[in-house]
Amino acid sequence: MLNLASDYVEGAHPKILEKLMQTNLEQLSGYGSDVYCQSAREKIRRAVKNDAADVFFLVGGTQTNEIVISSLLRPYEGVICADEGHIAAHEAGAVESTGHKVLPLPSNNGKISAAQVQAYTEAFYADGNHTHMVFPGMVYISHPTESGTLYSYDELQALSEVCRKHHLILFLDGARLGYGLSAGKDVTLPDIARLCDVFYIGGTKVGLLCGEAVVFTGIHEPDHFLTMVKQRGALLAKGRLLGVQFDVAFTDDLYFRMSDHAIAMADKLKEVIRRHGLTFCPETVTNQQFILLENRVLRELDRYVVSSFWSAPDADHTVIRLCTSWATTDEQLQELDRIFSMVIKA
Amino acid sequence: MLNLASDYVEGAHPKILEKLMQTNLEQLSGYGSDVYCQSAREKIRRAVKNDAADVFFLVGGTQTNEIVISSLLRPYEGVICADEGHIAAHEAGAVESTGHKVLPLPSNNGKISAAQVQAYTEAFYADGNHTHMVFPGMVYISHPTESGTLYSYDELQALSEVCRKHHLILFLDGARLGYGLSAGKDVTLPDIARLCDVFYIGGTKVGLLCGEAVVFTGIHEPDHFLTMVKQRGALLAKGRLLGVQFDVAFTDDLYFRMSDHAIAMADKLKEVIRRHGLTFCPETVTNQQFILLENRVLRELDRYVVSSFWSAPDADHTVIRLCTSWATTDEQLQELDRIFSMVIKA
Amino acid sequence: MLNLASDYVEGAHPKILEKLMQTNLEQLSGYGSDVYCQSAREKIRRAVKNDAADVFFLVGGTQTNEIVISSLLRPYEGVICADEGHIAAHEAGAVESTGHKVLPLPSNNGKISAAQVQAYTEAFYADGNHTHMVFPGMVYISHPTESGTLYSYDELQALSEVCRKHHLILFLDGARLGYGLSAGKDVTLPDIARLCDVFYIGGTKVGLLCGEAVVFTGIHEPDHFLTMVKQRGALLAKGRLLGVQFDVAFTDDLYFRMSDHAIAMADKLKEVIRRHGLTFCPETVTNQQFILLENRVLRELDRYVVSSFWSAPDADHTVIRLCTSWATTDEQLQELDRIFSMVIKA
Amino acid sequence: MLNLASDYVEGAHPKILEKLMQTNLEQLSGYGSDVYCQSAREKIRRAVKNDAADVFFLVGGTQTNEIVISSLLRPYEGVICADEGHIAAHEAGAVESTGHKVLPLPSNNGKISAAQVQAYTEAFYADGNHTHMVFPGMVYISHPTESGTLYSYDELQALSEVCRKHHLILFLDGARLGYGLSAGKDVTLPDIARLCDVFYIGGTKVGLLCGEAVVFTGIHEPDHFLTMVKQRGALLAKGRLLGVQFDVAFTDDLYFRMSDHAIAMADKLKEVIRRHGLTFCPETVTNQQFILLENRVLRELDRYVVSSFWSAPDADHTVIRLCTSWATTDEQLQELDRIFSMVIKA
Repeated sequence: MLNLASDYVEGAHPKILEKLMQTNLEQLSGYGSDVYCQSAREKIRRAVKNDAADVFFLVGGTQTNEIVISSLLRPYEGVICADEGHIAAHEAGAVESTGHKVLPLPSNNGKISAAQVQAYTEAFYADGNHTHMVFPGMVYISHPTESGTLYSYDELQALSEVCRKHHLILFLDGARLGYGLSAGKDVTLPDIARLCDVFYIGGTKVGLLCGEAVVFTGIHEPDHFLTMVKQRGALLAKGRLLGVQFDVAFTDDLYFRMSDHAIAMADKLKEVIRRHGLTFCPETVTNQQFILLENRVLRELDRYVVSSFWSAPDADHTVIRLCTSWATTDEQLQELDRIFSMVIKA
Repeated sequence: MLNLASDYVEGAHPKILEKLMQTNLEQLSGYGSDVYCQSAREKIRRAVKNDAADVFFLVGGTQTNEIVISSLLRPYEGVICADEGHIAAHEAGAVESTGHKVLPLPSNNGKISAAQVQAYTEAFYADGNHTHMVFPGMVYISHPTESGTLYSYDELQALSEVCRKHHLILFLDGARLGYGLSAGKDVTLPDIARLCDVFYIGGTKVGLLCGEAVVFTGIHEPDHFLTMVKQRGALLAKGRLLGVQFDVAFTDDLYFRMSDHAIAMADKLKEVIRRHGLTFCPETVTNQQFILLENRVLRELDRYVVSSFWSAPDADHTVIRLCTSWATTDEQLQELDRIFSMVIKA
Repeated sequence: MLNLASDYVEGAHPKILEKLMQTNLEQLSGYGSDVYCQSAREKIRRAVKNDAADVFFLVGGTQTNEIVISSLLRPYEGVICADEGHIAAHEAGAVESTGHKVLPLPSNNGKISAAQVQAYTEAFYADGNHTHMVFPGMVYISHPTESGTLYSYDELQALSEVCRKHHLILFLDGARLGYGLSAGKDVTLPDIARLCDVFYIGGTKVGLLCGEAVVFTGIHEPDHFLTMVKQRGALLAKGRLLGVQFDVAFTDDLYFRMSDHAIAMADKLKEVIRRHGLTFCPETVTNQQFILLENRVLRELDRYVVSSFWSAPDADHTVIRLCTSWATTDEQLQELDRIFSMVIKA
Repeated sequence: MLNLASDYVEGAHPKILEKLMQTNLEQLSGYGSDVYCQSAREKIRRAVKNDAADVFFLVGGTQTNEIVISSLLRPYEGVICADEGHIAAHEAGAVESTGHKVLPLPSNNGKISAAQVQAYTEAFYADGNHTHMVFPGMVYISHPTESGTLYSYDELQALSEVCRKHHLILFLDGARLGYGLSAGKDVTLPDIARLCDVFYIGGTKVGLLCGEAVVFTGIHEPDHFLTMVKQRGALLAKGRLLGVQFDVAFTDDLYFRMSDHAIAMADKLKEVIRRHGLTFCPETVTNQQFILLENRVLRELDRYVVSSFWSAPDADHTVIRLCTSWATTDEQLQELDRIFSMVIKA
């Protein structure tokens, strides 16, 4: 059955599996100290144009958010984010499980603005009772956001400025960073490295079996970060699994080529959606598209294609998510086109 | 200087201090096992009309919220509350420090409704991604609320029903419960005991030096609650300090008489405020009154009377809180009247 | 019934209750900002001979240990202590509940030595796997120890040196500090302030209703300590309760006079024990005495005097604790003498 | 350079990589709901001879320990283990980071006995102060242990009985379970499933790229385990990575054949060690061998072969670990033989 539910329904780019195969019997040291991790770190430093960047490989996105946030905040600090941010809504309380409060701001298409952060911080310190409240210590954004939107260069720069002014760490969740960079040519990877303090380059959703590369640029990796990673159960014994994958992804621009492919496919997906007169909810520039369906239609669609539940605006309608990825083929989109014809006619 | 900033600016009711004095050299066992704790527990069981109630004495409000919530929730659960609820806003992230997320709902004058809880819970379980989200496990309300409002009997009953239907524990924060019961004759202490699963009778703000009585009525005290209290650093060695105080407070209705006094004084305070044409923001039926002042006026007022900062609606105005308590005197309100005359003229 | 189970079976020194009575209706600001807290802090600074000391009042001992430790350690750090240390054995896992490991060393009569800390730390850093282990970040000692023993000046100085050499914070739990200072004239309060980084002066067990004064001398109070105290549910609204008590205790050397009394009474207690040929287990210089009894004798004793269970060396014997305090009278010890005569004959 | 430092220096068994390659473009649902995870779970249920077993795949060992322990214990409970147990010594305080204390017992060659658990539990409940202590809630053992030793069937059965008698959950860490089963034919996988409440079958160290299969047999998977796994950052989006690997490992007994190979190679390794007159410290029946070397010899050895630091018994000697694995070859052991000849001569 056709599956467009997410960008993690296939395995990894074949070049990555090939390299895992080729290097399989090499004897390598553990916990990220192997030559492939070293090489991948070096390539990422070049890609972000920051020789002093600290790079650390982790396995998954929630894990990365939890560890970055808890290792950088003090006990009295929380993390500002959009109210629909992944850490606020869809990580089962991972940040809170480490003892820190998530401080949600109303989001505008998934984004929060420098003005909001400024206003929140000023109001916080102006509040006569603020010593009884959770101090803002970090701003968490994702790019693309949960809604598939992108920050412009100017928005990102403004956020960066307000964070530096108020001594807030700016952390960018790049679970789908490749797709964001390919979709919005306004912001480059070095821009992100320069404007943020720490961010991660998502691998799981961009062609790897698993893996996220945390990159510290505005600040250094906290002391004994490896020990804190171990404590959170996130230190991979066979670190090579992450090193080899990122090493291949950052060779010959594979990461960006995979991302470009997904965005090109997303353009074709949007054409298919438009052709059938379906309602975007909303239309995005990235690889995730949200469409509003009558539940009657959705029940039919469910027989032929796997999609993701997104929200239920009323009792008769559902918003679903369809994603392209580095692996999406023209044939798959043609099949979707045929399925839509069948289902919507019905 | 006159101080109406809160209901905890004085010590304790003289009868309480006298009894501490009288019993001072009695040799009593520790950790809440003494005869005064036992007697106080028995009197509270009678007052709430529930012979099977488990009663436990703790020192302060944030501590009580933190311990009740963390000892009753499972790791995957969070606690629903009003977005301005004390646990959400003014406890420095105490609940999150125990690993649990606070799930805020928009408040209506400090209150949340059964319909909101129903809608939230239904939407949660209808959400296809809810296993990646924090499960609602408890509803926290306060009575009076942060805004000085009260739940009606019908509102409370509806909340109770929706909680039981959805297997949510209903927990009522009664930091100022006495004042709430005196102000709103609609709801009685036995009503609260019958409609809630667990609640606490606030002592610190109602005439004790310190102390809150947690009362489990709809559910039992969790297994090994004393050990969890100890673990949170909240087990008082000289438990007598709490036992004696609550024993006196629940003798001859002292708790209710102190509360009635504060409410009678609040009526007089409101007259003073009205007499000077000041704006309530809002007017309440309980012992906390909120008034809007020009900052220019507030600066003058600050020279003669201590008030509490509440909020800063704009750059030129501040909302302050004035409170009455079991200890407020007519003379104090007359002095406030004189001060207002002086300050507002100026 | 005579109760020598602990040093917290009576209330507070009468002078303390009198002052609480006298100041009861003074209107004071909350959360430790009142004049009595300020005065008490100033007096403690003088008593410890350190004008720059930060002093903070908390309610109880476990709470104090938990907050001091968790606010000073980084997530990858644990706290070294004696295996019978209070935090290791009798606080229901309070330190672990904040996420930190307790690193126990074998104790010698309740004490650990500088040599042990040195060896532990050197072995830790020499261990090729230490990045997968909990880093030592602090050394916790108590004075007197759980066993009623005392550190000598030289032992304390050696611990101080080894801690400074290895960047370990030295924290002294002074739950019974007064009794320790009175019993062992070798070490003074200013010595402790100079040799430790942070310690607390216990009030609960030395004549107060409740209260412990945390004193930061070798380091400063951590940033936003009040907020972390609030987060742990330990910030008392009526901070005056602690301020007044410590202010009285540090006026006219009352704290030391109460302590001296308990030690003088302990000497008399030891005479009584010796007179009846009972076995010390061990004999101590402080206010806690441990004696070994046949269970048959203990069952008789239990009818007349309350003691504390300490340990059960075998199926037929129990070690109990008997304590004197600021409140112990000659009459009580004479009564104990009579009871022993009766019980042991039997 | 020859690397015998651990059993995770190579990638995965080639059959596993082949299957990952073959299934790579199949579109599969996420988070462990795919057909390979289902198939693997079914095969494991057959292998453990328990149709009702709940099986859950996680990524690594520390993660598994942390999640199993924290999801099964109540806040007042800790976990008993050997003092050299992995959770006690080499997981950077992961268990404590979830709020639970590790309760270490002295180990005998890495093992703890039923008698110790019995004595500990009885002493705990006999202790008059036990409500101020951490309750034992679980017993954690590993098989093989950290020292490479194995529990006999009788030892395991006795532990099982004492745990059931005292309502303690028996949890077996099987990070190297395959090697343990191959080395000690006394205990079978179904035995373990019958005697333990929950255990895990280690993949990372037994031929997989990563992955541990948690198997609940004596108890059920706790409610909402997936949500707790998500909260700890351990839910893999591409669950197929784990499902495919375990599916292959439990097809045609591959898991056991890989394990048998490692043990056969360990026998050859021991011959090599013996041939050179080196001191075992101690000799084990499993795939890990510990040998004592003069530091002078170790420095030479380090030039040719990578080993693991184990301990430093004195200033002149080091104990190192050499491991075989599913991937070890005769050629490698012959090379080690040559290296020893060279190094020890020198």
